[in-house]
Amino acid sequence: SVTLFGVVDASISGYSSTSRDLNGATFLNPFYLNQGSVKVSRRTLANSGYNSSRIGFRGTEDLGGGLAASFWLEAPISNDDGQQGIATFARRSTVSLSGGFGEVRLGRDYTPTFWNDTVFDPFGTNGVGSNLINTANDAFGTFGTPAAATAPFTNVGSSNYVRASNSIGYFLPPNLGGFYGQVQYAFSEKNKYSPGTATPATLNASRQGRYVGGRFGYANGPLDVAVSYGSSTVGDNYYVGTTTKVNTLNLGASYDFGPVKLFGELSKAKNKIDYEVEPFLGGRPDVDLTGYLLGVTVPVGAGLIRASYSHVKYDFNAPAVLFAPAVEDPKANKLALGYVHNLSKRTALYATIARVSNKNGAALTVGGPAFIANGVFTPKTSTGYDFGIRHAF
Amino acid sequence: SVTLFGVVDASISGYSSTSRDLNGATFLNPFYLNQGSVKVSRRTLANSGYNSSRIGFRGTEDLGGGLAASFWLEAPISNDDGQQGIATFARRSTVSLSGGFGEVRLGRDYTPTFWNDTVFDPFGTNGVGSNLINTANDAFGTFGTPAAATAPFTNVGSSNYVRASNSIGYFLPPNLGGFYGQVQYAFSEKNKYSPGTATPATLNASRQGRYVGGRFGYANGPLDVAVSYGSSTVGDNYYVGTTTKVNTLNLGASYDFGPVKLFGELSKAKNKIDYEVEPFLGGRPDVDLTGYLLGVTVPVGAGLIRASYSHVKYDFNAPAVLFAPAVEDPKANKLALGYVHNLSKRTALYATIARVSNKNGAALTVGGPAFIANGVFTPKTSTGYDFGIRHAF
Amino acid sequence: SVTLFGVVDASISGYSSTSRDLNGATFLNPFYLNQGSVKVSRRTLANSGYNSSRIGFRGTEDLGGGLAASFWLEAPISNDDGQQGIATFARRSTVSLSGGFGEVRLGRDYTPTFWNDTVFDPFGTNGVGSNLINTANDAFGTFGTPAAATAPFTNVGSSNYVRASNSIGYFLPPNLGGFYGQVQYAFSEKNKYSPGTATPATLNASRQGRYVGGRFGYANGPLDVAVSYGSSTVGDNYYVGTTTKVNTLNLGASYDFGPVKLFGELSKAKNKIDYEVEPFLGGRPDVDLTGYLLGVTVPVGAGLIRASYSHVKYDFNAPAVLFAPAVEDPKANKLALGYVHNLSKRTALYATIARVSNKNGAALTVGGPAFIANGVFTPKTSTGYDFGIRHAF
Repeated sequence: SVTLFGVVDASISGYSSTSRDLNGATFLNPFYLNQGSVKVSRRTLANSGYNSSRIGFRGTEDLGGGLAASFWLEAPISNDDGQQGIATFARRSTVSLSGGFGEVRLGRDYTPTFWNDTVFDPFGTNGVGSNLINTANDAFGTFGTPAAATAPFTNVGSSNYVRASNSIGYFLPPNLGGFYGQVQYAFSEKNKYSPGTATPATLNASRQGRYVGGRFGYANGPLDVAVSYGSSTVGDNYYVGTTTKVNTLNLGASYDFGPVKLFGELSKAKNKIDYEVEPFLGGRPDVDLTGYLLGVTVPVGAGLIRASYSHVKYDFNAPAVLFAPAVEDPKANKLALGYVHNLSKRTALYATIARVSNKNGAALTVGGPAFIANGVFTPKTSTGYDFGIRHAF
Repeated sequence: SVTLFGVVDASISGYSSTSRDLNGATFLNPFYLNQGSVKVSRRTLANSGYNSSRIGFRGTEDLGGGLAASFWLEAPISNDDGQQGIATFARRSTVSLSGGFGEVRLGRDYTPTFWNDTVFDPFGTNGVGSNLINTANDAFGTFGTPAAATAPFTNVGSSNYVRASNSIGYFLPPNLGGFYGQVQYAFSEKNKYSPGTATPATLNASRQGRYVGGRFGYANGPLDVAVSYGSSTVGDNYYVGTTTKVNTLNLGASYDFGPVKLFGELSKAKNKIDYEVEPFLGGRPDVDLTGYLLGVTVPVGAGLIRASYSHVKYDFNAPAVLFAPAVEDPKANKLALGYVHNLSKRTALYATIARVSNKNGAALTVGGPAFIANGVFTPKTSTGYDFGIRHAF
Repeated sequence: SVTLFGVVDASISGYSSTSRDLNGATFLNPFYLNQGSVKVSRRTLANSGYNSSRIGFRGTEDLGGGLAASFWLEAPISNDDGQQGIATFARRSTVSLSGGFGEVRLGRDYTPTFWNDTVFDPFGTNGVGSNLINTANDAFGTFGTPAAATAPFTNVGSSNYVRASNSIGYFLPPNLGGFYGQVQYAFSEKNKYSPGTATPATLNASRQGRYVGGRFGYANGPLDVAVSYGSSTVGDNYYVGTTTKVNTLNLGASYDFGPVKLFGELSKAKNKIDYEVEPFLGGRPDVDLTGYLLGVTVPVGAGLIRASYSHVKYDFNAPAVLFAPAVEDPKANKLALGYVHNLSKRTALYATIARVSNKNGAALTVGGPAFIANGVFTPKTSTGYDFGIRHAF
């Protein structure tokens, strides 16, 4: 009654991040010597270039009367170096009760808002081809510390961008003529003190971790379209009376013409501080992150050509300062191209190349080493490739 | 030849711990303003509210001649947040050889003394309903550091209250007319130095971790009764010549009348320092922890009503000091009430509520956040609930 | 399509390491009181005394046309204390594509150079009987820190002596008339900076981790013989222009006479610093580690007698200093004797005893506690025994 399943995906991958000296001679420094560019590169054996490497256990029990109980435990694994086995079930860890009413699901699961970012991406947010909406949002609402961002699997304290722990989900039943939908609530699991003055004077510790969101869509024949909205509490300060949230709204669609399938997505995220008492000089302005994606896949025999263009822009909503030059909004775009060759349903070879171009201080990469960024060098282009094999079992 | 098995148990749980200001106006401070009470509460998605969440692998090989070899590897999992997968086999990790002589079992296993605490508890030491004998003993003999107490699964250095690593167990064969029994010895795995003066001057490092115990019982028809005794070395100091042990004696019984099943247990644990050279002013007195439990389960159709009352008392055996008021012994009692509704043999819904009342400084909870305890506030009542689903596979 | 397999091996093991005071009365200190010897011993429940405890998942998919895809995920487990479950797949974690051309394998796998050390050892580099070539090489090329050496499973940063992560392997097809062979390359996965002056001034951080090696052999009837060579980059310093490598060459053979099977191995490893600019006074001389092994197994009914003698010698190639006494090369030898009794193909009881004799400061043990080594005491003999059960599934 238990199904054991998994994916082992390994690739030879290379990454290269180039920063450039954009300074030139000025009136104050007429003899400035431009230092050109500096490149950081790395070659690796990587995992999850096409599909995420994993191993899982799942099963369903028919309880009669249309009712069923089921479980799903899925672990991320790093098969390139063998260092992460089934240490966690951080990909998914749920128990469900389902019936004519739909499904109630308890545990750790994908957030509704992440689904559109991955389902409508020809590269499925995997490998160097993953779209920029995903790359930028993943680092957008981290809980204060960079460590949280880099350890999305082992650290519960990440921003709940991809998944949320301690969640209760509800899914519409599948028989609604193509309409589908879900809502999710995740507990912050933080202590509440009564009277509130007993709350320890700790930043980011009393409401952080809560997530609430939903997603609704329509899939029929060649068309699939869905909208989602979610709000993630990424930090707060009880004494100052602030709550920091990332609110995300996105809309995605795909249409399968047969010889060609088109993909598109729009996304808008806002990193927002709610003030119980508005500061005299105004609070920190909201930070906006908007993005769009256009993608296409073309089946050719046993293969599939994949391509996507994505674009993101940050807006710090900084107030204009008299006589100062306006600060340009950081932005980046990405072009990704790939080919998958299916040796069977379970086994495929794949190749992907991608290039990110950054402007005005954005520092997004295709993966691999971070840019060298300092007073002299500004991040510019990041390129990378994956050449690998995906085997599912 | 391998059986894959497990439990995924998730519940919506809430906990609340209230401390009260028990001080009043005194001769020295006639205007003391009583500060009332302070409450810490938390709502969570929890695991293991009815049965412990787990995943395991086990198997048996018939060697012929009545002989069999078997193994059992069982991991605790945290399915509410997905953060603990099969990282350890800390629930049980054994290899056995069995035959007409009984069974010899090597590895990590339950201690004999823990069995009575869980078998004769209607709530099986799970969830908010777990009995106080369990709650109090779990924190009674920790190896010096609080961390050890809070990480019973990942830290070998816990007090061996529930389980012991590196153990050799022997079990009587099952055909003894209802009599059953087991003994267990667990190595401390500490270095021994000869001459002893080469022993590094480290506290709690040369004999800590050793456990020896046994359990004997009789189960026939509706009756099950068992007695167990164990001794756990929780610390020592080679140079001062002390050895700290927790010695536990308990007796439990259940009787199934059919419409009603009754449970009872008596437990006495002693945290004791043996001195090779008795200090001039006497050593630290023994600390005693005594407790009892009364429980009942009532089957109703597909359901089961569960209830228990448990009581524990600490005795510090402090010598009476002339003219000083006697220090009252800390004590606590707990009432737990629950209902389990079986949807099938494998799947059940359950609800439990419980309340602990502390006196004289005891600070036991039903789970969740610790009491606020300081000069002003004294721990009083802790309440909690679990409302969840248990699915076994 | 997935095979679940494993080994649970537990033993009662004891270790004892004796150091001796080798100093005597001298002209300068005519009344020196020799302090005799000091012994550190430990008794444990150990794992992997006969075969390494493990649990794994593997499978193969036939892709047609002689082509096949396969995966192998194998975790080391510590069944004696249950503390290591399937936390990593550090024993092996690979995905392969194979056909008439041979096999291409990606991931974490044994290095070619380790195979001869384990295949031609009657004790298979497990338990107290493991040969000294293995013991000495395991600690020979560690990446700077002792921690790396003691955590071969969880630390990618070990010396790649036994296994290498992020590797690409190629294996000859099996139909070559007894000839077999493999080559392996493992990425260092370190960042490369262009221009090189952008490289951070960090020791051991820009090329460490790379491994390249191969093994070729011939197995036909009773004879099996193989030679292997490998080079592991264990450290480097970009700015000083040094690269530290361990280069290993070994040759092993076994011949099965029927009533007796003989084993032999020769091994030479060199810890070598390559200087881009040779220092004026010469660099650090190479350190050589040479060893040999002689072994025998004798089947007796359902049992197998095993014995081996191994010897290793370190050579620091220190330049002779006028009038100073020559420093003797540290060396050690080991005698191991064991018996395995098979209860079935899957289950066996075993007993092993072993003794290491160290000279001139060598400090190799059979396992267990390290020697006491200081100005007074010099490591001498280490003895140990395993008495256990191995159960495979």
